[in-house]
Amino acid sequence: MTHSNSQRLVAEALGTAFLVGTVVGSGIMADQLTDDVALALLGNTLPTGAILVVLITCLGPISGAHFNPAVTLAFLLRREIAAGPALGYVAVQIAGGLAGAVVAHAMFELPLVQVSQTARSGVGQWIAEVVAAFGLVATILAGVRFRADAVPWLVGLYITAAYWFTASTSFANPAVAIARAITDTFSGIRPIDVPAFIVAECIGAALAVVVIGWLVGGAQRRGTAPAE
Amino acid sequence: MTHSNSQRLVAEALGTAFLVGTVVGSGIMADQLTDDVALALLGNTLPTGAILVVLITCLGPISGAHFNPAVTLAFLLRREIAAGPALGYVAVQIAGGLAGAVVAHAMFELPLVQVSQTARSGVGQWIAEVVAAFGLVATILAGVRFRADAVPWLVGLYITAAYWFTASTSFANPAVAIARAITDTFSGIRPIDVPAFIVAECIGAALAVVVIGWLVGGAQRRGTAPAE
Amino acid sequence: MTHSNSQRLVAEALGTAFLVGTVVGSGIMADQLTDDVALALLGNTLPTGAILVVLITCLGPISGAHFNPAVTLAFLLRREIAAGPALGYVAVQIAGGLAGAVVAHAMFELPLVQVSQTARSGVGQWIAEVVAAFGLVATILAGVRFRADAVPWLVGLYITAAYWFTASTSFANPAVAIARAITDTFSGIRPIDVPAFIVAECIGAALAVVVIGWLVGGAQRRGTAPAE
Amino acid sequence: MTHSNSQRLVAEALGTAFLVGTVVGSGIMADQLTDDVALALLGNTLPTGAILVVLITCLGPISGAHFNPAVTLAFLLRREIAAGPALGYVAVQIAGGLAGAVVAHAMFELPLVQVSQTARSGVGQWIAEVVAAFGLVATILAGVRFRADAVPWLVGLYITAAYWFTASTSFANPAVAIARAITDTFSGIRPIDVPAFIVAECIGAALAVVVIGWLVGGAQRRGTAPAE
Repeated sequence: MTHSNSQRLVAEALGTAFLVGTVVGSGIMADQLTDDVALALLGNTLPTGAILVVLITCLGPISGAHFNPAVTLAFLLRREIAAGPALGYVAVQIAGGLAGAVVAHAMFELPLVQVSQTARSGVGQWIAEVVAAFGLVATILAGVRFRADAVPWLVGLYITAAYWFTASTSFANPAVAIARAITDTFSGIRPIDVPAFIVAECIGAALAVVVIGWLVGGAQRRGTAPAE
Repeated sequence: MTHSNSQRLVAEALGTAFLVGTVVGSGIMADQLTDDVALALLGNTLPTGAILVVLITCLGPISGAHFNPAVTLAFLLRREIAAGPALGYVAVQIAGGLAGAVVAHAMFELPLVQVSQTARSGVGQWIAEVVAAFGLVATILAGVRFRADAVPWLVGLYITAAYWFTASTSFANPAVAIARAITDTFSGIRPIDVPAFIVAECIGAALAVVVIGWLVGGAQRRGTAPAE
Repeated sequence: MTHSNSQRLVAEALGTAFLVGTVVGSGIMADQLTDDVALALLGNTLPTGAILVVLITCLGPISGAHFNPAVTLAFLLRREIAAGPALGYVAVQIAGGLAGAVVAHAMFELPLVQVSQTARSGVGQWIAEVVAAFGLVATILAGVRFRADAVPWLVGLYITAAYWFTASTSFANPAVAIARAITDTFSGIRPIDVPAFIVAECIGAALAVVVIGWLVGGAQRRGTAPAE
Repeated sequence: MTHSNSQRLVAEALGTAFLVGTVVGSGIMADQLTDDVALALLGNTLPTGAILVVLITCLGPISGAHFNPAVTLAFLLRREIAAGPALGYVAVQIAGGLAGAVVAHAMFELPLVQVSQTARSGVGQWIAEVVAAFGLVATILAGVRFRADAVPWLVGLYITAAYWFTASTSFANPAVAIARAITDTFSGIRPIDVPAFIVAECIGAALAVVVIGWLVGGAQRRGTAPAE
């Protein structure tokens, strides 16, 4: 670890801020420009996927580029981060995410803090968030194991896909879910619906730790020296 | 081969499940959000191409990431997989594909198993599936030969293109065709139309084995040592 | 050169056929599905850019993946290909391109050979084709010089952009222009308009040979050993 | 530095010309083909992101591929370029950008020089330009530090995202802002609104130099030998 603790925390906050700023800002832009909701979702999807590649490449070498409490939870379960630093990460992810929503509102000259009215609830949505977070953490864990240099691309592409194949448009991130509760725009979520999303996301992340831990573990089990 | 047989089979099942989940789920999402069919197809195409890059990168080191009986057939014809393991692959690909469709339905709160009413038949469709599978297998074989690290990208980009340049939107995959018969949504296909698709796909795959086998074979024929 | 002459010619024909099949096929698909011409152009652009990455990666090691008489002309002017092989390349590029259009028509159950009625003429169109071919050949020459492994991506991305920034939607390829004269669909061009396109494309390619030859030539001029 | 001064200046001019030609040309094309502004913006975004990858890869080894006075300012503040060469860069960036707009107009048979009537002003727009330029320069500086070979992709993806998440569609480039003042088409900006954009962009660039300089500086501070 060549960077200081404060550098790592700022990287997590800045990255999550840009991520949420992109999700909320592109949602506002797209929604203002078209009446076609699929087109608005496309204008929301492509920027989010693109910025993830950029943020993970640029900030990953500093903090690991979690930007997501569910990802930090996964590394905690794998004992690759300790509880103290993990809590710090989660705190600045939430703070950064909220800041990102506020800056997006400032750019579009909207009230800086809002209360979303968009209902996102029900069994289908919760299954979707389990699937979304499972796939995200699985992508990260398998990607780190087999093609670490490609992880920024894999995460960007995974989220690009998951926006469309999950019924919830794939929040898959408790810090982003919290931040999206303070915007009453395209990407918002009612505050009351956030806790169930967070639970579903944590379940999905934990499931991925178990399944992918078993699935990619082959090489180590068979010899004393790792294959790569 | 550093992974166990059960790890390989689970990887094939999980990968095909996510592939079909993406095709079916993004088709439902896109179709619900717009009346423009080209836009719906775009909302179906981009997630499918994106998830293929992710799945092949993450699961390829475990199982080879076939996710497709036509691809397994191609490797069988090239004697790079034996008949027994090939049958096992095909079985779990079909099972995984069906599971993916069911999960997609669950996320969108639709009946878990449906019967598609979408007719996809006729000479044009069958030519399209021969072309689609030929191109897919040709991409994989030439890609593995010349740029193995790029194969996930090549497959994702090939399918992105083939969704649009083939009249059938490029199923190119018998397991996916079977799974798409149990969804009466955007990406569905009538069960009665599936067998001809499968035949066309196997013809295309076999043709690619012959043509690409000859086309890329130059280096080996000219010396005893391979060029790379 | 590890591949035989017939392998190289088949690679050029097959690659150009898939390129034209993608341009014509995706144009038909997009045009049938939407009334919005920008969306149809997007459904034409993305597949073309994507398939170029695939074709150049898979067939480049065999034939160099010209698929384009203007590119072959550029390498002839640079004396990197002799006149005889260049003529052979151009002949199979044209034949392959025509075959690609015919196969696209077969997939969509349209008359196999048609006569386009789409006028594409005038000074603006001709300037556009000079710019389009200049940019394409410049991309290839500079790409080969500085990042040879990225050339498939650079060409795919360049054409993705040039579809939109040139007034002609960037044919930039005499073999493709000829093939597009036999389709009276979205991507067609009147036969009478083809010769001026070809002249403009050859001018653009020749200009790029001169300009890029000077621009990227620095390192060699300053020492006896190349920089990389 | 293996290329001559005139080669570097031509590379900066040519790159900025193609960048502006793409922004202006694709804006005209998209706007002519659709009434949906989100779709027009998408037809403006994708070509811009794509051409940036191409231009930076192809011209970066010659001039560094700034194409942007705010980027040149950032390297000046970091003392990686001297004041004299920096001034030369800025001059040819502006000249190249203007030429790119003129060529785009010529391709679309529009008046070669126009005066934009599109108002882009207000606090939201200015904040957006600070954010846009901050993110762009941060991406470049962190990218160069951690993954230099990926910088063309990072910049292309960053701009793809920033088109949508900033309220100003992310000009982030004084030379491009000046050039867009002479086109009264989709991507234009009133001349009177340009100076404030330039100020905002320079503030964003300077901020990024400070923040990223601190953020990525960890490794060097801790030892005498750089980590890579």
